[in-house]
Amino acid sequence: MEALKERIRKDGSVLGGGILKVDSFINHQVDPGLMMECGRAFAKAFADTGATKILTVEISGIAPALTTALVMNLPLVYARKTKPITMPDLVLLTTAPSHTKGRMVDIMASPEYLGHSERVLIIDDFLASGQTIQALVRIIQGAGATVAGVGALIEKNFEGGRALLKDLNVPIVSLAVIASLDNGITFA
Amino acid sequence: MEALKERIRKDGSVLGGGILKVDSFINHQVDPGLMMECGRAFAKAFADTGATKILTVEISGIAPALTTALVMNLPLVYARKTKPITMPDLVLLTTAPSHTKGRMVDIMASPEYLGHSERVLIIDDFLASGQTIQALVRIIQGAGATVAGVGALIEKNFEGGRALLKDLNVPIVSLAVIASLDNGITFA
Repeated sequence: MEALKERIRKDGSVLGGGILKVDSFINHQVDPGLMMECGRAFAKAFADTGATKILTVEISGIAPALTTALVMNLPLVYARKTKPITMPDLVLLTTAPSHTKGRMVDIMASPEYLGHSERVLIIDDFLASGQTIQALVRIIQGAGATVAGVGALIEKNFEGGRALLKDLNVPIVSLAVIASLDNGITFA
Repeated sequence: MEALKERIRKDGSVLGGGILKVDSFINHQVDPGLMMECGRAFAKAFADTGATKILTVEISGIAPALTTALVMNLPLVYARKTKPITMPDLVLLTTAPSHTKGRMVDIMASPEYLGHSERVLIIDDFLASGQTIQALVRIIQGAGATVAGVGALIEKNFEGGRALLKDLNVPIVSLAVIASLDNGITFA
């Protein structure tokens, strides 16, 4: 999606270690208009997947997942990283390494909102190693539901996430694909 | 806002200890259409405040803050509770007690996105004791910016938050005000 790529070119910055900082429009400050455009792009790309629900993981996935949910008129579930006391006693919990936190994090969701008949579209901000998204896949499958597709705002295709998720046989859509962060930002 | 109250009546549940569970439409699963209606209600209520930016705190505040930001066409900043490595070395950090976590939590924001000239509208899911919102006020004032207003989806008016925030002399708008959770949910 050209608007997102342009914004990454203009306001993204490379911190080293394969980290792309997009704090001024996605991850700390959010540009709502841009997120809405991204939501429309995901809705178009996944229109034929029969998705009945959208799943993301707190925190940075919530904005693009919510705009996609708005356009597709589907409920959104965001998996939690810590268990609030409002969650039921039995949750589906898995772990994934966090790139920006430098440690393993818990990822959990309540089975209340992931029924057997749901076809779940995963939307997140980044597709990098694919391990966070694979954690969401484990939660969906653990709940007996089906993965309908995977969407990411930004894919770092040099980290192998797409290959990891290939066997799901679902559409994987990234709105901006980055081939390298070695000498500035190179799009694929 | 009648639609929100109706939904709370229908799907909210009282867990005891003054905790209202709204996990099926606000806090874990999100109803995007309802959040958009709430965003429109906030945008209308705060139309004359001259707000230039919206501030919330992860996690549950993001959905209503984003829909408000969409309608008002303003950037949204969400304060973080843990510091990702993409944040700059110097942040504004304060603490507040978390009702649902049962402990003090850090709340921080980057001064990059809260300039002196900003008029900042705070949007959150709950206004209860007011201490989380007061933490956001400290961050706004610490950045040299101005608080333009405070909006909450749900106010528990028996917890005193409104009184705590009174000296700000800004509009405080709650879309559903709960007077008691002692015998089911009683709206004010």
